[in-house]
Amino acid sequence: MSLLHPDRLFPADPDTRAITRRLYQSVKTLPIISPHGHTDPGWFATNEAFSNPSALLIQPDHYVFRMLFSQGVRLEELGVRTRDGTAVEADPRKIWRLLAHNWPLFRGTPSRTWLDHVFEEVFGIEQALTEANADALYDHIDSCLKMPEFLPRALFERFNIEVIATTESPLDTLSHHNALAADPWQMAGGKPRVITAYRPDPVVDAAFEGFVRNIEEFGEITGEDTGTWQGYLQAHRIRRAYFKQLGATSTDHGHPTARTADLSLAECEALFAKVLSGNVSAIDAELFRAQMLTEMAGMSLEDGLVMQIHPGSWRNHSAGMLARFGRDKGFDIPTQTSYVDALKPLLDKHGLNPKLSIILFTLDETSYARELAPLAGVYPSLKLGPAWWFHDAPEGMRRFREQTTETAGFANTVGFNDDTRAFLSIPARHDVARRVDCGFLARLVAEHRLLEDEAFELAHDLAYRLAKKAYRL
Amino acid sequence: MSLLHPDRLFPADPDTRAITRRLYQSVKTLPIISPHGHTDPGWFATNEAFSNPSALLIQPDHYVFRMLFSQGVRLEELGVRTRDGTAVEADPRKIWRLLAHNWPLFRGTPSRTWLDHVFEEVFGIEQALTEANADALYDHIDSCLKMPEFLPRALFERFNIEVIATTESPLDTLSHHNALAADPWQMAGGKPRVITAYRPDPVVDAAFEGFVRNIEEFGEITGEDTGTWQGYLQAHRIRRAYFKQLGATSTDHGHPTARTADLSLAECEALFAKVLSGNVSAIDAELFRAQMLTEMAGMSLEDGLVMQIHPGSWRNHSAGMLARFGRDKGFDIPTQTSYVDALKPLLDKHGLNPKLSIILFTLDETSYARELAPLAGVYPSLKLGPAWWFHDAPEGMRRFREQTTETAGFANTVGFNDDTRAFLSIPARHDVARRVDCGFLARLVAEHRLLEDEAFELAHDLAYRLAKKAYRL
Amino acid sequence: MSLLHPDRLFPADPDTRAITRRLYQSVKTLPIISPHGHTDPGWFATNEAFSNPSALLIQPDHYVFRMLFSQGVRLEELGVRTRDGTAVEADPRKIWRLLAHNWPLFRGTPSRTWLDHVFEEVFGIEQALTEANADALYDHIDSCLKMPEFLPRALFERFNIEVIATTESPLDTLSHHNALAADPWQMAGGKPRVITAYRPDPVVDAAFEGFVRNIEEFGEITGEDTGTWQGYLQAHRIRRAYFKQLGATSTDHGHPTARTADLSLAECEALFAKVLSGNVSAIDAELFRAQMLTEMAGMSLEDGLVMQIHPGSWRNHSAGMLARFGRDKGFDIPTQTSYVDALKPLLDKHGLNPKLSIILFTLDETSYARELAPLAGVYPSLKLGPAWWFHDAPEGMRRFREQTTETAGFANTVGFNDDTRAFLSIPARHDVARRVDCGFLARLVAEHRLLEDEAFELAHDLAYRLAKKAYRL
Repeated sequence: MSLLHPDRLFPADPDTRAITRRLYQSVKTLPIISPHGHTDPGWFATNEAFSNPSALLIQPDHYVFRMLFSQGVRLEELGVRTRDGTAVEADPRKIWRLLAHNWPLFRGTPSRTWLDHVFEEVFGIEQALTEANADALYDHIDSCLKMPEFLPRALFERFNIEVIATTESPLDTLSHHNALAADPWQMAGGKPRVITAYRPDPVVDAAFEGFVRNIEEFGEITGEDTGTWQGYLQAHRIRRAYFKQLGATSTDHGHPTARTADLSLAECEALFAKVLSGNVSAIDAELFRAQMLTEMAGMSLEDGLVMQIHPGSWRNHSAGMLARFGRDKGFDIPTQTSYVDALKPLLDKHGLNPKLSIILFTLDETSYARELAPLAGVYPSLKLGPAWWFHDAPEGMRRFREQTTETAGFANTVGFNDDTRAFLSIPARHDVARRVDCGFLARLVAEHRLLEDEAFELAHDLAYRLAKKAYRL
Repeated sequence: MSLLHPDRLFPADPDTRAITRRLYQSVKTLPIISPHGHTDPGWFATNEAFSNPSALLIQPDHYVFRMLFSQGVRLEELGVRTRDGTAVEADPRKIWRLLAHNWPLFRGTPSRTWLDHVFEEVFGIEQALTEANADALYDHIDSCLKMPEFLPRALFERFNIEVIATTESPLDTLSHHNALAADPWQMAGGKPRVITAYRPDPVVDAAFEGFVRNIEEFGEITGEDTGTWQGYLQAHRIRRAYFKQLGATSTDHGHPTARTADLSLAECEALFAKVLSGNVSAIDAELFRAQMLTEMAGMSLEDGLVMQIHPGSWRNHSAGMLARFGRDKGFDIPTQTSYVDALKPLLDKHGLNPKLSIILFTLDETSYARELAPLAGVYPSLKLGPAWWFHDAPEGMRRFREQTTETAGFANTVGFNDDTRAFLSIPARHDVARRVDCGFLARLVAEHRLLEDEAFELAHDLAYRLAKKAYRL
Repeated sequence: MSLLHPDRLFPADPDTRAITRRLYQSVKTLPIISPHGHTDPGWFATNEAFSNPSALLIQPDHYVFRMLFSQGVRLEELGVRTRDGTAVEADPRKIWRLLAHNWPLFRGTPSRTWLDHVFEEVFGIEQALTEANADALYDHIDSCLKMPEFLPRALFERFNIEVIATTESPLDTLSHHNALAADPWQMAGGKPRVITAYRPDPVVDAAFEGFVRNIEEFGEITGEDTGTWQGYLQAHRIRRAYFKQLGATSTDHGHPTARTADLSLAECEALFAKVLSGNVSAIDAELFRAQMLTEMAGMSLEDGLVMQIHPGSWRNHSAGMLARFGRDKGFDIPTQTSYVDALKPLLDKHGLNPKLSIILFTLDETSYARELAPLAGVYPSLKLGPAWWFHDAPEGMRRFREQTTETAGFANTVGFNDDTRAFLSIPARHDVARRVDCGFLARLVAEHRLLEDEAFELAHDLAYRLAKKAYRL
C-alpha cells in the first residue's frame, strides 16, 4: 500500500483541500526547472551507475547524517571519510541498517518526506523502512541501480527535468560541462540541459583555506596578473564569460554575512594587497567579501548573469568535526543576518537598475517580513529566493509565503530552488514545494482573498515560470 | 458581480467561519475611530473635490507605487514629482493605465484588498480592474469625484467616521484645524471630528534636514528662546497646549530606534548646545532623540497627551531616490529594533505611573512576543499599538494577535490604527481589521478557549472601545 | 455546567479534531513527570495546609499579578510584601475580590486556562469567576484547603505526579529534602518523588546581590577554600554530589545570556580573583558566568547531572519595583539571545560527547528555527527544552513545534516542563501541553505527513517518555 497519500501536505479543511487538489493537478506534471543546486555534473557527463544505496542516499546527505549524529551515531559508523584516513565503516549494507534502525528519528522532518518519495516513486517500494525489511530494501535498490533505467540520464529524463544548474568554483576546469557541450544528449531538448553557475567564494573569501594559492591559480587559469586588483577583476570577467559560454546564467555567493561595500579604487587596491598578504584580519576579509559583492553586481550588469546571495551560515561550527572530517559535515549553523544596512552600499551603486537581478536568500526567517520583503518590494534589482536549507520544508515554506507575500507579492519571488546534491530527491523536493504553494494559494481562495482563476495562474508561475524568468533560462 | 465576498478574510473552517460571521455582524457598522493617520486636514477644512483618480489613488500611495517600481515601472511614469522639476508623466489617464496593466502584481497584497473595496464600496464598481476596462473605470471614478456626494466631508460621513486624527509638525500653523474649529461641521457630532496630533520629529531629530533652522522657527512661533534648553522645552509645552486646544489627544514620535535616556540637567544643556551647533554626530543625534522621548513622557504627565512611539524605520534607504524624489517614496525599510534596554531609562523615570500612556509600535515582529507583550503586560504606562505599516495586512494582523495575546491580553492593546494618507481606503482598512480580529476571536471560541459572549464583548472592544479609551477620545 | 470543554485547545477542523481526540485519550491520564520547577519542597516535607485562596493562587503567581499591575492595580493592594515593611493589604478576601473584578483581563491568556482548570478540576467549581460569586468561591476554596484531601501530599497523589523536581541554591541546606529522605512517603512509589536540582546562580553570578559573601558561605558549607579557584571548583563538586544524593539529576543555569568561555587555567584564576574582589565589572561578571557554564558541563561529564541553560531574561527590569518589592515581581523581560557564537567555546570543548546532556531553553523564539533546532539537530550533547515562560501557552507551544520539528525532529526535544511555583496549576499545565502536542501531531496525520500509529507513539513520548529519558529519571 502506498505511503504517499495523494493529498499529502494539503490543508485539512475540506474546501481548502479541494481547491488545493485542483491547483496541484494543474502543475503536478510541469517540467522541473532546477536553477540552483549542487548535483555532480559528472553524473550526467559520464552517465555511470550510482554505486550503492548508502553512498547514494546517506553518505552525501547532511540532512540525514546530522540527525543520526545528533542521536549518538558516529560518522565513522556511517562510513563518512576522515581527513587522516582512519578506517571507517566500509560495508554499505551495515550503514543502511543504521538508517533503518534510526528511521523513527525522521518523523516530522523533510528527510522522511523526501526519502519516502524516493523509495516509492523512484524504486517502487510501497512499505515503510524498518529494521526487518532493511536488507530487502537495500537489495532491491542496489539491484535497481545496476539497471539502465536508473542511470543518471535516464533518471534525469524520467524526472522530467528541463534544465538543472550545478555550482562550480572559478578554479574548476568544468571538464564535465565541456564534455556535455560536446554531447548530443545535452541539447536534445533544444537548449542546454545541464548548466553551471559561477561560485567564486574560493577566490573571493580571504578566510577560505588556501586563498592566496587560489588567487595565483586563478591567474594561471585566466592568464591575468591576479596580483593586481585590475588583473584580479579581469580574471573574474574572463572566467564568468567562460562559465556563461557553458550555459551559466547566474553567479552564487555564500558569504557569512550580506555585507557589501563601495570603496574607492585606491581603497580597493590597498585592501586587495592586504588580503593577498596571506595574513588577513577577519575585518579585512569581511570588507573584501563586501566589496566583491558590489564588484560582482557591476559585472552582472556587464554580462547579464543573475546574482544569488546566500548569506548567514556559520560554516563548520564544530572545530573538532572540521579537524576530523573536513567541511560540509552538517555543522553549518544559521546566524542572525541583517540586510538593510548590509546591502545599502551595493544598492546605492546599482540597486535602482532594473537590468540587474539579485536573488536574496536567508537562513534568518526574521528577515522575511522585516527586511527582505520590504527591500524586494521596492528595489527593481532585488528578488527573493525561496525558503532555504533548514527552512526548505512544509512549515518553513508556509512561513515564507505568509511573511513575504503581503509586502513583496508573488512576482518578486523566483519559484523554487531544490539546492541539493541529493539528485534522487529532486522530484520529491519540487513536489513538496508545489503542494505547499498550492495549499497556500488555496487558503487565499478559500478566504476570498484571491479568485480561483488567479490562483491557477500563480500556481503555474510558482512551479515553473518564475524560476525560468528570474534565472533567465 | 461583487468581488467582495461577504465571508472574505474569514477562516475557512465552517464552524469557525460561522462564529466569525456572527461576531463580525455585531461590529461591522460601528463608527470608525481613526486615532492615528496622515490624511490632509485641508480636505476636511476646504471640502474641495479630489482632482482625479490617479492623483487620489496612485500617486500618494507608497504601497502602490513601490510595488510598481519594484517591477520596473519608473516613478516618472507615475507622475511622481522630482525635486529638480524634471518633467514627469502629466496625464493621469496614462498613469491609471499603468496600474491596470500591472494589476496582477498586487495579488495577495493588502493594496489589492483595499482598492477592490474602494472600487466597489465607494464607487460601485463590480468588476476587476483590467487593461480592457481601465479607461471606463477611470472615467467612472473621475465623474464620481466631481459629484457632491464624493466631496471629502460627504465621504467622511458616509464612511461613518466618528473622529479622525491627522499628524502635524510643531512648526505647522494648523491653519486647517483652525478653520475647522470655526466651522459648525467640525462639531456636528457634539465633539471635534478632525483633530491633530503633535509630531515633533522636525524639532527633535537633529539629523532632520533643516533642524537648526527649525529650532529657530520653533522659537519664533512660540516666543521662547529656543537657543536654551529650558526655552526649548518651554516651546514644546506651549506648542503642545496649542495642539491640544485644537483637539490633539496624542503625540507621535517616529524615531529610528526606541532609545530613551535620562540625563542630568547639565548633560541635557551640553547636549542641546551640541545639536544646535549644526554639526552633530550620529551618536549625539541619537542621544538627543533619546532624551527627548523621556522629556515628552514627562510633559505627557503634565498635559495628559497620549504618547505614541513609532520606531525602527530606516527612512529613505536609497540615496538615489532621496536625491531625485525626496522623502517618503517607498524606501523606508524596517530594521531590527530592541525595546527592553532602549526604553529602560524612560521607564525607570516614569514607567510605573498609570497616568502615563505610551503606545508602542514596531516594524520588527520579533519583538511582539519577546519584548513588547512582556513589557506592556506589566508596565501600567505601556500599551501595544496594532500591526503597523508593512504588517497592517491579514497575515500580519493575525501574527500580532497570536504573538501578543497570551502575555499582554487584549486590554493592553489599543484597537486599530489605519495610519494612512489614503483617505478612501480608511473604511477598507478598518473592515479588514474587524474581519481579521473577529476571525482570531472565533478561533479561540471554536477551540473552547473563550466563550462566545466574551468574544462579542472583545470584538466590540477591538473595533471601537479600546481605541477611544487608549487615545482618550 | 462545566467551563472545561472536553475538546478545548483542539484544532477546529473536524477530522483533525477527531484525530486529536484519539491521541489525547491515549495520554490524558499518564503520570506527570515534572523535571523542572519551583515548587516549595516544604509543602511536601511538612504537608501543612495551604493558608488561603489568595496566598495560594494570586500572591505567588507573577503571571497573575503582572497582568493586574499592567492595568493599574498596585501590588500593595494585592498584599505583595514590600522590602521596607510598608503596610500592604492584609485581607485575603479583598485581594480575591480584586482578581474577580479584573477577571476579564485574562481572556486569551494561559492564566485563565490554568485557573479555570484549577477551579473546576481541583475544587469542583463549575462557574466562571465573577464579582457576584467572588465571595462564595473564596469561601468554598478556603474551606477545601482546610480538608485533608487538599493537603499537599494528597494533591500530589491526586495529580498523579510520578516525580517532581524543585530548584535550590548550593547554599540551601536542603532541610526539606533531607526530611523527605527520611520519610516513607517519599519512596512510596519505589523511587524518590520529590527531588532537588542544583541551581548555582548565587555562587556563579558575580552580579548577584551578596555574591562575595555567598562564596564564603559556600566554603563554609563544603569545607573548601573557596578563595581559590581550585577550592571553589571542588566546592561545586562536593555540593553537586550532595544534591545528587538527594535525588538531583540535573543542574540549572539562569544566565542573562548563553555566553560560554574556555579560558586557560591561569586566566581562570585571575578572573576568579577579580570577581572575588567585590568590585567586578559587567564584562568580567559575564565572562565568569561564561567560563562557569563550561566548568559545569565538565562536571556533568563527571557526575552525570543533566545541565539546563535558561538564558535571556533581563531580571528585575524596573529599578523602582526592585527597590520597593525585591526580585521576581513580574519584571523579568526577555531579550534577544544568540546561541551559535555563545555556545561555541563549550561545544568545542565538550559538545561532541554523547554522554553530556545539555537542555537549552529560550525566551527568544527567533532562535527556534534559526539556531536551536540546527544546533540540537546535530550536536549529540544538545536537546531543546519546551516552550518556556511567556511562551508556555497554546500559541507559543504550537510555534515551538512548528519551528523546531523539521530540523530537530521530536527526539531532540525533552517533553514538557511546567517550571512553576503554582503547585495547583501543574495538572492544568501538563494538560495544556498534552492537548497542544496532540493537536500538532494530529495536523501532521491529517495532512498525511505522519501515520496515525506513529503519532500515538510520539504523543506518549512527548507526554511522558522523553522527559524521563532526558532528565535521567
